[in-house]
Amino acid sequence: MPAMRYTLTASDGRARAGVLSLPHGELETPVFMPVGTQAAVKAVSVEELRAMDVRILLSNAYHLYLRPGLEVIRHAGGLHRFMNWDGNILTDSGGFQIFSLSSLRKLTDEGVKFQSHIDGSHHFLTPEDVVRNQRDIGSDIMMVLDECVEAAADRKQTMTALERTAQWARRSRMEFERLGIDNQTLFGIVQGGRFEDLRRESARRIVDTGFDGYAVGGLSVGEEKPLMYAMLDVMDSELPENNPRYLMGVGVPEDILEAVERGIDMFDCVFPTRAARHATVFTRDGKFPMRNKEFETDLRPIDEECGCHTCRNYTRSYIRHLFKAQEILAMNLASVHNIYFLHDLTRAARRSIIEGRFASFKSGFLYRYTTRGNARGE
Amino acid sequence: MPAMRYTLTASDGRARAGVLSLPHGELETPVFMPVGTQAAVKAVSVEELRAMDVRILLSNAYHLYLRPGLEVIRHAGGLHRFMNWDGNILTDSGGFQIFSLSSLRKLTDEGVKFQSHIDGSHHFLTPEDVVRNQRDIGSDIMMVLDECVEAAADRKQTMTALERTAQWARRSRMEFERLGIDNQTLFGIVQGGRFEDLRRESARRIVDTGFDGYAVGGLSVGEEKPLMYAMLDVMDSELPENNPRYLMGVGVPEDILEAVERGIDMFDCVFPTRAARHATVFTRDGKFPMRNKEFETDLRPIDEECGCHTCRNYTRSYIRHLFKAQEILAMNLASVHNIYFLHDLTRAARRSIIEGRFASFKSGFLYRYTTRGNARGE
Repeated sequence: MPAMRYTLTASDGRARAGVLSLPHGELETPVFMPVGTQAAVKAVSVEELRAMDVRILLSNAYHLYLRPGLEVIRHAGGLHRFMNWDGNILTDSGGFQIFSLSSLRKLTDEGVKFQSHIDGSHHFLTPEDVVRNQRDIGSDIMMVLDECVEAAADRKQTMTALERTAQWARRSRMEFERLGIDNQTLFGIVQGGRFEDLRRESARRIVDTGFDGYAVGGLSVGEEKPLMYAMLDVMDSELPENNPRYLMGVGVPEDILEAVERGIDMFDCVFPTRAARHATVFTRDGKFPMRNKEFETDLRPIDEECGCHTCRNYTRSYIRHLFKAQEILAMNLASVHNIYFLHDLTRAARRSIIEGRFASFKSGFLYRYTTRGNARGE
Repeated sequence: MPAMRYTLTASDGRARAGVLSLPHGELETPVFMPVGTQAAVKAVSVEELRAMDVRILLSNAYHLYLRPGLEVIRHAGGLHRFMNWDGNILTDSGGFQIFSLSSLRKLTDEGVKFQSHIDGSHHFLTPEDVVRNQRDIGSDIMMVLDECVEAAADRKQTMTALERTAQWARRSRMEFERLGIDNQTLFGIVQGGRFEDLRRESARRIVDTGFDGYAVGGLSVGEEKPLMYAMLDVMDSELPENNPRYLMGVGVPEDILEAVERGIDMFDCVFPTRAARHATVFTRDGKFPMRNKEFETDLRPIDEECGCHTCRNYTRSYIRHLFKAQEILAMNLASVHNIYFLHDLTRAARRSIIEGRFASFKSGFLYRYTTRGNARGE
């Protein structure tokens, strides 16, 4: 039995509803994956994630490699046992983090040399190393090492990165097969910057190598949204229908819906939990800064239509107080809400796809979300 | 029916096992009360407290008066509803906080003038105000406003504070009766500094005024432990047997056991949760700094004999990693453990009192706790 099975349940235009079967259980797509970069989702417990029916979370092979170190995770019996999470885990390879966090990074065809952002220590990793590291971590979905380029990168730079990403993908795939891994799965990553034809070429080369799933990288930072949507527009026809598609680092409500419309199944983003820790919460009426004076005696939940633990038990008045008083509980309650909100959004999107009314669901949600949100002057 | 009933279940020497019946349910004594100064126990949710069978927590009328303000709490329907806690709440009056946190404080016989430690605003509170404020908060147990003196205070200063504390206690009691409060209860506070005879005199005057319970104040900061124990030694004979006795601001294992031996029933302290947030955890073998390298691959729970959620699910190796990585979850897991540890300690002490073996329980616990703890060179 393969480590992964993707079943396309229904489609509506390019939007897809599916079921992803993985070593640690089944999950429905589209799906938002909460981010636990350092083996913990910030300010949220795994019990709280389970209670929300979250089935997959994301961690990061680069971060875990540096701290606590793979030896510690191996010794614990893998990342699932280390962090007490029995759901699925996707680990990012760290290509993006090496690009954004580490200093003195030097890429060669062989691999990447970099300095730790934690202690300045020197490291060298090949694509093969990164597969082996993720085998040790034991993630259900591992990602190949890729080369991220800045959004502003010119055509030449982007082509160089595309070429290297394609070669590294092939080497990663070979290493994965050489190791005979059968209880984990490997995703390739499409790059290509802001060039539609390079996006297509990257996709063709990655698909040609053949992976269990396909990620779209390099669209989460600094890009204008129209560019992101344009780059996604060419993906549906390039990526095979029978594999899941993952848009890396994207996860605010409007982007999720735009990407689902363009055939994307999986999302992750640190923004929802980071925003929550800074007192910004999602609601059906847009984002709110919870510290606002207007909430001082507001006895409503963050979102009156939300079924999360926070909204079922706590008022805006109390949560505002907790933020003003700098209580850690504030970050927990807001993070739980924001994660649930996106979880709930993807579930609602899924139902609308199955029922053939995704377009109206999307426009209805976004109309309310953006007009009311803007009315608050954010 | 009175708002409170204390039943002495058993005694062993001066040590007492009792049952305290309060508006929000019954609880067994000795009891450790987790501290939620600002309407939240730091880094711990009320659901986690409930899961540990915590029945009472402490909050602070001074802090709540300043932030969020009593109007906000009244609007929410009282503190229980504001913070979603259906167990009991004891509110400290804030005498100690006015003494330790606020600036420009000026005490007169009438009351206390002080500046907020948050925004520098000016305030004046009488003992009557503080009773009314706690009525609005709706705490199950309210404390009278007292005058705290420093441990180093001389006899004259201590006598002045004692006199004022006694007068304020009487005025508080009268205000409590004038208001006809029947669903909350009021505790008096014994002061008297480091003078045995003044402690006795203070106790007699407070008992003479008559309260539902008696607190012993001014022993939590700066005092040498032998002095604290000596001051407690004179309390048992002065305080009535049929009322609970609360030692304010004390709550590390050794002090709890020494005070239980001297007839104390109730405890609170910020140290257990503050220490937890700084990675120090209690175990039967003493306190551990969880960041220590020795725990890097240690797959045991914090305390192998502990039944708390943290110890049932998480290893030292993981918790150490979370502290090193500055994950908020670390503070949560360690705080849950430390609160449970003290909760469990008081339960074990209670059983030993009922079974008439408190002295050996105490010496056995402390022998192991202090010798192993010291061996770690803390």
